[in-house]
Amino acid sequence: VDDRELLTIVREVAGDAQTFDDCAVIQLGSCCAVITTDMLHASTDFPRGITCRQAGWMAVAVTLSDIAAMGAAPRYILLAVGLDQPRHLKKILEGAVSCAERFGASVVGGDLDAHTELTLVSTGIGLVDPRSIVRRSGANPGDVIAITGTPGRAQAALVGYTQFACALYEPIPAVMEGIALGKAGASAMMDVSDGLALSLYDLLDANDCGFSIYTAMVPLPPEVPLDEAREFALYGGGDFGLLFSIPPGLLVDIGISYTVIGTVISDRAVLLDGDPMPKRGYVHQWNG
Amino acid sequence: VDDRELLTIVREVAGDAQTFDDCAVIQLGSCCAVITTDMLHASTDFPRGITCRQAGWMAVAVTLSDIAAMGAAPRYILLAVGLDQPRHLKKILEGAVSCAERFGASVVGGDLDAHTELTLVSTGIGLVDPRSIVRRSGANPGDVIAITGTPGRAQAALVGYTQFACALYEPIPAVMEGIALGKAGASAMMDVSDGLALSLYDLLDANDCGFSIYTAMVPLPPEVPLDEAREFALYGGGDFGLLFSIPPGLLVDIGISYTVIGTVISDRAVLLDGDPMPKRGYVHQWNG
Repeated sequence: VDDRELLTIVREVAGDAQTFDDCAVIQLGSCCAVITTDMLHASTDFPRGITCRQAGWMAVAVTLSDIAAMGAAPRYILLAVGLDQPRHLKKILEGAVSCAERFGASVVGGDLDAHTELTLVSTGIGLVDPRSIVRRSGANPGDVIAITGTPGRAQAALVGYTQFACALYEPIPAVMEGIALGKAGASAMMDVSDGLALSLYDLLDANDCGFSIYTAMVPLPPEVPLDEAREFALYGGGDFGLLFSIPPGLLVDIGISYTVIGTVISDRAVLLDGDPMPKRGYVHQWNG
Repeated sequence: VDDRELLTIVREVAGDAQTFDDCAVIQLGSCCAVITTDMLHASTDFPRGITCRQAGWMAVAVTLSDIAAMGAAPRYILLAVGLDQPRHLKKILEGAVSCAERFGASVVGGDLDAHTELTLVSTGIGLVDPRSIVRRSGANPGDVIAITGTPGRAQAALVGYTQFACALYEPIPAVMEGIALGKAGASAMMDVSDGLALSLYDLLDANDCGFSIYTAMVPLPPEVPLDEAREFALYGGGDFGLLFSIPPGLLVDIGISYTVIGTVISDRAVLLDGDPMPKRGYVHQWNG
């Protein structure tokens, strides 16, 4: 059983309207908001050696990344802390608050519970003009497909390339990029935290078209042997960049850095250099 | 170390504007919303013998109760599931969805993670007219203090009075009562899940006045020996009633059931039958 199989149960019980996107879109009076929640815990989500402050930062960063992937501006964060050691609380909160504030959000509430292993659940609310919401669906053949940042850095750090430690321990959510891409007219978007390959397959699930990318166009973590760098960039998880499609005519003066890595095609496939891309990356495995 | 000591750390790092209430109050465009998150997990929060469906129900119910305690109408729920056994997921979600729908809310999103013990974190958003928000602060000497429902039933079930099992396993959040009390002009309100005594002390912390209640006025779980019933009702945790203060002149035609148990006084104390009330009830204890 893996995450993606369990998701079919979620869709069966809770409906599938919201499960294809990084956030749920909710209407509050005249206001359009996006909302998302993320659970991280010590044994499966936090990299070995992470500090309490970094764990707090990361918990908020994953949520901000989901909000950014919808084209929304993060505003409010709630943090539920399943605390293994009371003395860890202060640093965790300091990390969470500093990440939220760095990206224009506030930690407005939360909960505390005793837990055998550190478990952090952050929930975020962002605001967005309904015309600027970007969902996973919406890609059209002829759009280009592009990413922000350099994928593979977190995976490189995980296997020992310490020069990328910040990407792993103190990830930077692409908040400004997401807002800019929403305004620019990106047609589909998501974050790439499960890896580029699996994210492309998620886009495939949410759209009626396909995606064709080229290895040579993907930016790679520098100072890493080429074969390894490509493996990390295409299949490694833990990065916080955004993957998006956009009509090429709209890629003018959008004010952010990005790299075009391929095009949206009418075929229902994910292609790497013209061949079906292996569907592998970061997936939770479940016993039983 | 207990919950209340850790709360001082939270207030130091995150500010104390929001930590005195059951929910944070947020402004989204022209709309006033309340938001709250609650973490429950198997070893400390779920009573022994609870089913997966009941655990899902309870996770949503605690959040709806917090929203009700602000006088707001619940609208959206997110559920993060730290799942011990994949086969438990469906029943958990069914319980969560049925509780949300019963009280006018929808489960719009969530997250899934593998966990050594079942951990459910529900986040809820409610809507409220700003004039109807009820906080923990706001009580005034001369107000009466009252509760909805019968406290002590969950505690009675916990020690073996099985006729109250539903109060423990399938708690009913006082959603309609909270909305009605907000409209009626309740001056202060909170839910009593930590027990009546500790909740009165929480109100004491949030107000500049005090609270004087009388044992004989507190409704008791029926068919339980009087001494035990009083212990459960005054100090037992796990109930989902609302504790509120209100000017007595406003207690007209509010359309809900409640019981007046005392009055708000100018002395800074919690009194039971005229003497200081013992400050005890349900508090997490932390090692280290």
